Amino acid sequence: MTAQLDSVTQQIAAITQAGRKAQKALAGASRAEKDAALHAMAAAIDTNRDKILAANATDLERGKADNIAAALLDRLALTDDRIDGLVSALGELAALPDPIGNMVRGNNLPNGIRLQQVRVPLGVVGAIYEARPNVTVDIAGIGIKSGNAVILRGGSAAETTNGVTISILRGALQDQGLPADLIQGIDELGREGANALMTYRGGVDVLIPRGGPGLIRAVVENAAVPVIETGAGVGHVFVDASADPKKAVDIVFNSKTHRPSVCNAAETVLIHKDAQDTGVKVLTALQEAGVVLHVDPTAATWVADAVAATEEDWSTEWLDMVMSVKIVNDIDEALEHVETYTTGHTEVIVTENVSNADRYTAEVDAAVVMINASSRFTDGGQFGLGAEIGISTQKLHARGPMGLEELTSTKWILRGDGQIRH
Amino acid sequence: MTAQLDSVTQQIAAITQAGRKAQKALAGASRAEKDAALHAMAAAIDTNRDKILAANATDLERGKADNIAAALLDRLALTDDRIDGLVSALGELAALPDPIGNMVRGNNLPNGIRLQQVRVPLGVVGAIYEARPNVTVDIAGIGIKSGNAVILRGGSAAETTNGVTISILRGALQDQGLPADLIQGIDELGREGANALMTYRGGVDVLIPRGGPGLIRAVVENAAVPVIETGAGVGHVFVDASADPKKAVDIVFNSKTHRPSVCNAAETVLIHKDAQDTGVKVLTALQEAGVVLHVDPTAATWVADAVAATEEDWSTEWLDMVMSVKIVNDIDEALEHVETYTTGHTEVIVTENVSNADRYTAEVDAAVVMINASSRFTDGGQFGLGAEIGISTQKLHARGPMGLEELTSTKWILRGDGQIRH
Repeated sequence: MTAQLDSVTQQIAAITQAGRKAQKALAGASRAEKDAALHAMAAAIDTNRDKILAANATDLERGKADNIAAALLDRLALTDDRIDGLVSALGELAALPDPIGNMVRGNNLPNGIRLQQVRVPLGVVGAIYEARPNVTVDIAGIGIKSGNAVILRGGSAAETTNGVTISILRGALQDQGLPADLIQGIDELGREGANALMTYRGGVDVLIPRGGPGLIRAVVENAAVPVIETGAGVGHVFVDASADPKKAVDIVFNSKTHRPSVCNAAETVLIHKDAQDTGVKVLTALQEAGVVLHVDPTAATWVADAVAATEEDWSTEWLDMVMSVKIVNDIDEALEHVETYTTGHTEVIVTENVSNADRYTAEVDAAVVMINASSRFTDGGQFGLGAEIGISTQKLHARGPMGLEELTSTKWILRGDGQIRH
Repeated sequence: MTAQLDSVTQQIAAITQAGRKAQKALAGASRAEKDAALHAMAAAIDTNRDKILAANATDLERGKADNIAAALLDRLALTDDRIDGLVSALGELAALPDPIGNMVRGNNLPNGIRLQQVRVPLGVVGAIYEARPNVTVDIAGIGIKSGNAVILRGGSAAETTNGVTISILRGALQDQGLPADLIQGIDELGREGANALMTYRGGVDVLIPRGGPGLIRAVVENAAVPVIETGAGVGHVFVDASADPKKAVDIVFNSKTHRPSVCNAAETVLIHKDAQDTGVKVLTALQEAGVVLHVDPTAATWVADAVAATEEDWSTEWLDMVMSVKIVNDIDEALEHVETYTTGHTEVIVTENVSNADRYTAEVDAAVVMINASSRFTDGGQFGLGAEIGISTQKLHARGPMGLEELTSTKWILRGDGQIRH
């Protein structure tokens, strides 16, 4: 066992080394060369879509035979529409400004030294995800545009789709005279490969887990390389006493039902006790759409056919047409509940009261805090960052949707003419 | 043993919890209140300097009796001058703009949502350092100004000094109506306390090790909380063929001898074979100042009284009046040597050739790359960032000298009027 792990770690060492070597070629590439590569990747995905869909059909059949969860099947499925989305996302990336070389800060020091802080690529970026073949294309594209090499572990459920997709993308890079090893997949190394990627220090410069709570926890707890934690999303919508009824219904309904399987879907609705009329409208709309409500004792008196909420429900990420419901006495109780149970992803308040809006945005500790808008807007594309590599729920380096800039580091450059320190 | 560790972890849990509670009071404080606290801290250090110096004398005597290294004794020692420096650093921090609340990015989305990314405190910042009582004051000051609570483990060598200093700072906070627990020391919990601080997830939001290579490695390898790696400094000065002789001598000499015990002191000089005249001047100046040279076979033919360099010397952080010397055939060999042995802290080229200067700054992968300036300038104060919390040698979150901004995170705030996603 140990011997086998060691051999896998050696393979990971060789793969990360190859990535590092390939990245140097990209570090010297101009924006035009990188954008040409992105357009070539888009064209290759477009023209080879039948191959990708056929591979995806294989994965979907296996997934159904293995009885994987509906939410996972939804993430796994590619359609012509979703492939169109990937193709246009690569094109949009090419249209975005190149973050590399941008000056972050700069000034002349009193002694005449010219000081600049410029953006540079991180280097080699690892990603571990599951059942999301679109992530393969997103991360490869963002990686190339930001000057990084990527190493992708897409998980067994999407293995066939990812294998075909990666090979198409590598071919497109080679056609552009860039090293294929800018994009490498390690699905064939299995779980041991994923473990070695997490633990081999000096391999990747950062590792990004993207997927369900179990995957993210496993990576964060076991990694010995720098990790950016993403996506664990137990988020709340708080319907304040002053909430506009239509906005409350629209926002809670959209936050829960627009795409329940993703991390920016809301999981709990908190309703001010004085907003009962609005609350009943909200809960009825959810129930009519088929959402199963897990309610506290007060909410149980507002609607029929609901399940009694357990303590565990408050920290459950349903990722499904299920929602926890709690009636609170005031904004303090809402803030306290959110502080206890939020994973720090997206928190929403529906209110017409400006003091409460200000207080919520100031006091809630989350990557994104919204006033009167659906939690579904937490998304790199919606924010105008281009395709996103994930949504960070940690505070270091990046917080919230991560786009191109979040895959860069900086370098200080000092230009002097002989200055020494006295 | 396990039982004892558990009890220490419980204490760390309580201490980080107290820090988190105290930080909330600070999060709502205005800039004026924070600056008043900094001025009060400065005044308290100033008026209690005799107490601090007496405590420091106790630590220094114990250190000498324990035969601790000269470099460590230098770091440990406080003098009236160094205390003046700490007092004025706190005053300079008060004069710096408050980073909290600054808008990083912001725009209106096409659907009318107003998007803002604002700076917020990280929360609770832990620091593990050794034999540097000045770091206690620096980190406490930067922590308060950036809205964070700090938990300090200063190490046994400086225990008496740190204990007295922390108690003076806590008193100053209380006099200002702020919670004393914004600044907590855990020296009395010993090594087990430090270990618990590293491993207790959910405790500190970030842990910063500051000290020698052994300390930093121990923290980076054992921590289960987010860490910012700092200060490991095997840095090089490359004297190019076209180097101006006076600049070369000044810069190498200053980089090595100005304060050899710190991380921005250079450890190796690389000299282009065609710059022999300049190289001999550089090496002679170093030897005349008492620097012991560890030289490669070519450099051994340039100067007398040098030690033959071993392979290990190239990766040694001397932190002393010792320097490794290598003669290279061209800039490629210099770049290759640097890539192999640098810890990514500060790299310097002395050159009059603009293409080589450009190539060096582009290709060397380090936090700071300098043209024709002393490595000693890598410093938050020199960069104009105010007192620094350390020099990051990692690529995530912060790279190079870390000041106030580097102790912050961001929060996205979205203001809508009922928008939902279609």
